[in-house]
Amino acid sequence: MKSINTSPISGMQELLPPEQAVFNQLKKQVEEVFRLHGFQNIETPIIDRTEILLAKAGGDTEKQIYKVVKTKETEQDADQALRYDHTVPLARFITEHENNLTFPLKVSQIGRNFRGERAQKGRFREFYQCDIDIVGRNTLPTIYDAEIITTLYRALETFNLPALSIRISNRKILSGFLSELNLQAYTAEIFNIIDHAEKVPEKVTISRLQALSIGDDNVNKILTVMQIRGSREQTIARLRALSIQNEVFHQGIEELDTVLSSLEQHGLGPHLSADLSIIRGLDYYTGTVFETFLKDYQAIGSIASGGRYENLTSFFSSRPFPGVGGSIGLTRLFHVLKENNLLKNQITPPIDYALIPLSAKEYETAYALSQKLHQKGQSTDIILTEKDLKTKLSQAAKTATYAVVIGEQEAKTQNFVAKNLTTRAEIPLAP
Amino acid sequence: MKSINTSPISGMQELLPPEQAVFNQLKKQVEEVFRLHGFQNIETPIIDRTEILLAKAGGDTEKQIYKVVKTKETEQDADQALRYDHTVPLARFITEHENNLTFPLKVSQIGRNFRGERAQKGRFREFYQCDIDIVGRNTLPTIYDAEIITTLYRALETFNLPALSIRISNRKILSGFLSELNLQAYTAEIFNIIDHAEKVPEKVTISRLQALSIGDDNVNKILTVMQIRGSREQTIARLRALSIQNEVFHQGIEELDTVLSSLEQHGLGPHLSADLSIIRGLDYYTGTVFETFLKDYQAIGSIASGGRYENLTSFFSSRPFPGVGGSIGLTRLFHVLKENNLLKNQITPPIDYALIPLSAKEYETAYALSQKLHQKGQSTDIILTEKDLKTKLSQAAKTATYAVVIGEQEAKTQNFVAKNLTTRAEIPLAP
Repeated sequence: MKSINTSPISGMQELLPPEQAVFNQLKKQVEEVFRLHGFQNIETPIIDRTEILLAKAGGDTEKQIYKVVKTKETEQDADQALRYDHTVPLARFITEHENNLTFPLKVSQIGRNFRGERAQKGRFREFYQCDIDIVGRNTLPTIYDAEIITTLYRALETFNLPALSIRISNRKILSGFLSELNLQAYTAEIFNIIDHAEKVPEKVTISRLQALSIGDDNVNKILTVMQIRGSREQTIARLRALSIQNEVFHQGIEELDTVLSSLEQHGLGPHLSADLSIIRGLDYYTGTVFETFLKDYQAIGSIASGGRYENLTSFFSSRPFPGVGGSIGLTRLFHVLKENNLLKNQITPPIDYALIPLSAKEYETAYALSQKLHQKGQSTDIILTEKDLKTKLSQAAKTATYAVVIGEQEAKTQNFVAKNLTTRAEIPLAP
Repeated sequence: MKSINTSPISGMQELLPPEQAVFNQLKKQVEEVFRLHGFQNIETPIIDRTEILLAKAGGDTEKQIYKVVKTKETEQDADQALRYDHTVPLARFITEHENNLTFPLKVSQIGRNFRGERAQKGRFREFYQCDIDIVGRNTLPTIYDAEIITTLYRALETFNLPALSIRISNRKILSGFLSELNLQAYTAEIFNIIDHAEKVPEKVTISRLQALSIGDDNVNKILTVMQIRGSREQTIARLRALSIQNEVFHQGIEELDTVLSSLEQHGLGPHLSADLSIIRGLDYYTGTVFETFLKDYQAIGSIASGGRYENLTSFFSSRPFPGVGGSIGLTRLFHVLKENNLLKNQITPPIDYALIPLSAKEYETAYALSQKLHQKGQSTDIILTEKDLKTKLSQAAKTATYAVVIGEQEAKTQNFVAKNLTTRAEIPLAP
């Protein structure tokens, strides 16, 4: 029957209506939690100038970006591409609209981003991210870092997931530590090795560190620090016991203490651990970094992460806008929850009432009933096909919770019966 | 201060948070009305195969489409482009997922589409469209056409706009009429002239029709029919009085009558007119066509439109999926409402309560209060900057409705006062 390949391009999410309803519900829950916590939503364009999007790019970004071109160029347009995250457009937005914004600016962004990665299972090229950021002008207190983590946690909490585990570090600790060892020139390489340590056997990490020729003593010291993890008190105590002089190191410890204390105050204590192996790749983070895992599904990877960045707008503006942000990768999360059967109980029929007038004469009654149900927030579908009642009922059973058959009698008496299409129970409907 | 052009690309909507909140609210209202009327939401990918997107294209579409290319092609990918409407991806979706869908399928799609038009005021290259469609397998009763129009009307009704006017025609009437005159070969050209008639003086329309060399008598007959407009009874009567034999012509009249009658039953009578000059461009419509105007702002153009299409999936599949659909161009509508000051009273501060602890000691109280307010659906922003109280209050006044100052006394007594930041009124806050 098909005369053309109609599958979506690989790496693009396309859901059937019942699954889309679940996805939308999760998105709505995130939106609501973000709103309650005082984040104002913005939407930047999906298409932006390539020079903006690549201003701070490195690593794989440039390879993965989608450029856009008009089929027929009718005018001189700047090079354009699709945004690959929400953070770079936010930096542009803040630089552009600075004078019309109130700082600290608390913003949420929920939308699709695009990365032309190699297609593979569980990797999306077009995916929803739910971001929140708090951005100050010139300064921003550290306690805001905890607000980002708490808000993301509250959003995830609404998903009824198995136990969550939030792992937190502060990059200043490792940076200061490496400075103390006179290894600051190796910071990027060492961060990269630590960032990948969890995915490889320990001996690989050791040989990678050794390959830097920084001395066995330093390798051992780095291994010791990167393996520090545990409760706030333990971790802070162990770090302080290292008797490091470096100021940045101690600033990092103070900040980590502040963030963890605030999160404990927010009631997140049981889900927290300090963890010096958390790095967050080669990104722009400068202080707090965090990742969130499902305790019993560590293989899924982090489902919400982020951190503090002091210099985000530095490519666009000379004024400092320190910020802290985090993100839930909703498309990927939805996919892994589905794969692990963690969504099952959330799928409900998308329509509340299927109204089935037996003939054209009862249509007016059906329509009036639908209006009354709408006022109560109940959704309706009036089935108007020229099929027999049995076919209509089986059609209704696929999309609705209840069916209401409307014949002459019902039109006259205005007494309606709603039949639960799963349990078969019939209850009077008083709209 | 800026070191780079940070303005969004021309033709892209970028709103500040208070305006974005209004835009989001309108979008949410549309979503809710679509949901209540039994439409199930789907989301097709923004990036699709170019051969799909251009399968039925003609006119300007090909010129306006945005192609996407990865900076570094690492594999053989099909030609890809950004969707320019929701209808073509819907046709692909239905062909692809036919066996997993329930027909008639009632779907909504709300998202951004992309057209690389020449940049000009009020024209967007990236814009939200809110579409609903009802698609049958093999057949679909005409009465569903009225459901599309009613649902779009109910969505617009929530915007508190000035009076709306819905102008409806059925293409079969003019098609049948032209067949009767043996002018079927000129249908596309004549439709095009009628479609543009409202934007040019009548003599231009006449000379365009004369240029077709179809005879003055036929030109006059066409002018007579295309100017027929009015109430259902009047219009139907005038059309029948033309004593045309053609069957399609009469089928069109029947369908127009059915749709208008059903809309009257839905209470839309006062806003309706039959109008034979409505064509809807060179699109794929085959029956009902409609446009919606703000009565006192006709120059704005149609704000919601659509129609019946019998052959949408014909490029992808041999099975007929007749459908009817319509769309609200939300980005453009929002823009013209703003330009005409029709949004003014909808802008409210995005945050309900700004909570201002006087020192770190009161933070815990502020946090506990925020949790209680969240449970009541009230949004909060705890202001944690190291500024003086006056600065914090003026910051709060820019984003919140109320401010709650929390000092030692409030922390002890748990008695809070909410200050309305506009009226200055103070009321006790019992969360």
